[in-house]
Amino acid sequence: METQVAGETVTSFPEHVLHEGVPGNYRMAAFSDGVFAIAITLLVLGLEVPRSVPEGGLLALAPEYLPKLAAHVVTFAILGIYWVGHHNMFIYIKRHDRALLWLNNLFLLFVAAMPFPTALIVQYGNDRLAVIVYGSTLLLAGLSLELIWRYATYRRRLVADNLDPDLITFVHRRVLLAPLVYLLAIATSFVSIAAAKVLFLLVAVAYIVPNPLDDYHHRQFREGTGTSE
Amino acid sequence: METQVAGETVTSFPEHVLHEGVPGNYRMAAFSDGVFAIAITLLVLGLEVPRSVPEGGLLALAPEYLPKLAAHVVTFAILGIYWVGHHNMFIYIKRHDRALLWLNNLFLLFVAAMPFPTALIVQYGNDRLAVIVYGSTLLLAGLSLELIWRYATYRRRLVADNLDPDLITFVHRRVLLAPLVYLLAIATSFVSIAAAKVLFLLVAVAYIVPNPLDDYHHRQFREGTGTSE
Amino acid sequence: METQVAGETVTSFPEHVLHEGVPGNYRMAAFSDGVFAIAITLLVLGLEVPRSVPEGGLLALAPEYLPKLAAHVVTFAILGIYWVGHHNMFIYIKRHDRALLWLNNLFLLFVAAMPFPTALIVQYGNDRLAVIVYGSTLLLAGLSLELIWRYATYRRRLVADNLDPDLITFVHRRVLLAPLVYLLAIATSFVSIAAAKVLFLLVAVAYIVPNPLDDYHHRQFREGTGTSE
Amino acid sequence: METQVAGETVTSFPEHVLHEGVPGNYRMAAFSDGVFAIAITLLVLGLEVPRSVPEGGLLALAPEYLPKLAAHVVTFAILGIYWVGHHNMFIYIKRHDRALLWLNNLFLLFVAAMPFPTALIVQYGNDRLAVIVYGSTLLLAGLSLELIWRYATYRRRLVADNLDPDLITFVHRRVLLAPLVYLLAIATSFVSIAAAKVLFLLVAVAYIVPNPLDDYHHRQFREGTGTSE
Repeated sequence: METQVAGETVTSFPEHVLHEGVPGNYRMAAFSDGVFAIAITLLVLGLEVPRSVPEGGLLALAPEYLPKLAAHVVTFAILGIYWVGHHNMFIYIKRHDRALLWLNNLFLLFVAAMPFPTALIVQYGNDRLAVIVYGSTLLLAGLSLELIWRYATYRRRLVADNLDPDLITFVHRRVLLAPLVYLLAIATSFVSIAAAKVLFLLVAVAYIVPNPLDDYHHRQFREGTGTSE
Repeated sequence: METQVAGETVTSFPEHVLHEGVPGNYRMAAFSDGVFAIAITLLVLGLEVPRSVPEGGLLALAPEYLPKLAAHVVTFAILGIYWVGHHNMFIYIKRHDRALLWLNNLFLLFVAAMPFPTALIVQYGNDRLAVIVYGSTLLLAGLSLELIWRYATYRRRLVADNLDPDLITFVHRRVLLAPLVYLLAIATSFVSIAAAKVLFLLVAVAYIVPNPLDDYHHRQFREGTGTSE
Repeated sequence: METQVAGETVTSFPEHVLHEGVPGNYRMAAFSDGVFAIAITLLVLGLEVPRSVPEGGLLALAPEYLPKLAAHVVTFAILGIYWVGHHNMFIYIKRHDRALLWLNNLFLLFVAAMPFPTALIVQYGNDRLAVIVYGSTLLLAGLSLELIWRYATYRRRLVADNLDPDLITFVHRRVLLAPLVYLLAIATSFVSIAAAKVLFLLVAVAYIVPNPLDDYHHRQFREGTGTSE
Repeated sequence: METQVAGETVTSFPEHVLHEGVPGNYRMAAFSDGVFAIAITLLVLGLEVPRSVPEGGLLALAPEYLPKLAAHVVTFAILGIYWVGHHNMFIYIKRHDRALLWLNNLFLLFVAAMPFPTALIVQYGNDRLAVIVYGSTLLLAGLSLELIWRYATYRRRLVADNLDPDLITFVHRRVLLAPLVYLLAIATSFVSIAAAKVLFLLVAVAYIVPNPLDDYHHRQFREGTGTSE
């Protein structure tokens, strides 16, 4: 049996290799949602309440707090992107095995760590290392998410037998785009820290605006072949 | 096909426009519940344990802590109102698409941020800016919730085909009431900070007492046309 | 129609009054579980890591930390008791309305607040006010839980039509026992703070050991009339 | 009726003793997932953002932060192991009673406590007591997990009637391995603190690599006798 996966011919593999793992991703999803919800909410602890009010009231602190607030909102958006990506990926991943649980835990390690680099960049936004730590954590989160998709779709291991090869490729490309920009941002930080920060902002904007994957979901569902969570 | 939506005639729209999005809001609800549960519980961290006991024991700190406690309880109630509103709204929203996920994330951004303005108002309750930041975050949360309802019900995009137009209007009005009062509270803070605080308290009271929406739910359910979560 | 509720004759009430509320307590349970999980885990933040090591190493801090640890474990157990009580209660509560949502939020207000009085008693364990604040928060949590049961079972409003009146009474008594002891502990604190603390410990022990309710559950289930979550 | 449980003959026990407890472990799983998600995410609070930047920028802090980061990652992995173990165990545990709820709460007590010993070992990594407290908390978590399995499988109390005795034994051995190594690590710390730390790392590595239990799951599922969550 030969299958066309994203343009390259896959050599035949026996039926019993397909569909490994056990079904029921419920608790993995619940655990992941919990970690995301906590990490995204703990970000706020990085915005420390000022210890004392300066002359002129709290307003005098605005120049200090506005960039902190911007870093907070961008990180919230970026974590939101990863949550949406994880959510969409698990519409198609139907089963799990130990390896997937651990790839998921690897992804969550970087998600759960985000309050630290975010607090770092909020407080020391002009230090290159803060930008590099921030970008690297996001980069590693993105690569872990790509590993999840690669592992789950390899020979349709944990997805539906007839999952559209075009969709598999499309998700690969879409998931890899963000880490690529984060890598670029890290490199850019050696030239200009401000430019690196703009790149993080661009990722947030680029992923939040509508894109073809939505249309695919809708079309699939309307054609009666789509899958719900 | 013409439909009466809240009194105004909606121009005909083709069937395939109806029912967009994919069903299964489970993980969005779980993620939202998680963020709410964490934000509402993190509020308590704003009530810092005193670093030292004054002469006369902890009781001497009561005048300092009672207003802090009041701010804590009112914020808990206001976040509770938003949770109940979100919960009730998603009794009717049956599907989701990427836009809804992001409108929901926008709403959660403001919900998750609440521990910060709450700690601010707990600590600097007499600073006008603290009141404005507190009121604005709540205002933006309320407007985001309204956006969710507007997006989901526009041409019955993500709700049931036959959802009662009166219910749609009723929810719009009810959801918009709170942000309106928060706007009023912000304006009032320029005259009297104490009066502004009373308005926040009023919102908590007004939303917690019973209201016609409950009767609607019950009546619908008894008539066999109601929808459960 | 006359029903015997816990020995007293209930006057007849029309059928349509029964079974108010909408079914589907799922999100209320998820939100509650989230608040419990966070409150019970945030307790650990009250055990602050020492800022510096004294001469003789960390071991020299044991006399300071052992009572803190004891307070932590007892509070964990007491919150665990409330979670188990809430969980068992919602085996029988089948529907909800706005009032129940808010009684539940009231209960969660006190549950979510617990890290504060716990940190207070951990740090100022010999201050009477710390004991009173701790006991009062638990007392109010217990009374809220009783209110939930009273509201839900009144004329079988939100429970099964044929729910055993003996069970209703049994749960009332069991739920009210703890607040009674907390009230006693508060009163005792005016005589002896140590004795008051022993009472908190007693509650933890008394509720964790097996009791007749378990047998009831099992018997019901084996007889095929029991209800699962 | 005689059953072979892991090689030893179990004396006959009457049918009605089998299958105690009530089905529906949903909320226990949700509560546990919540505590795990929070504990594993709170770990990050142990990595405090530096209060000031030394000369030479943040990079000068790397020698201080790298071991902290290592402790963070190893603890994340070890908690991940316990979560995976708990998740796998509850594939087989089908019912619960009060005793199981409390054994589970006991397990969660130690899981939820982990941010404290982790912060301790992150900050005072060369203090023997820090290593002992860290190891003991993990040891007690492991023993509690073993108690859950022992209680649930004793005479198939809360598991399927026909659960493979080999699986029961296999899980016992696998669950007990970690606490054994933690005990060894505690003992080793009296000789060499560094060696003790290597043992914690070894546990993380040993449990994350693939193992026969996965094969069992897959085989069972393919044979149509496997159980999903």
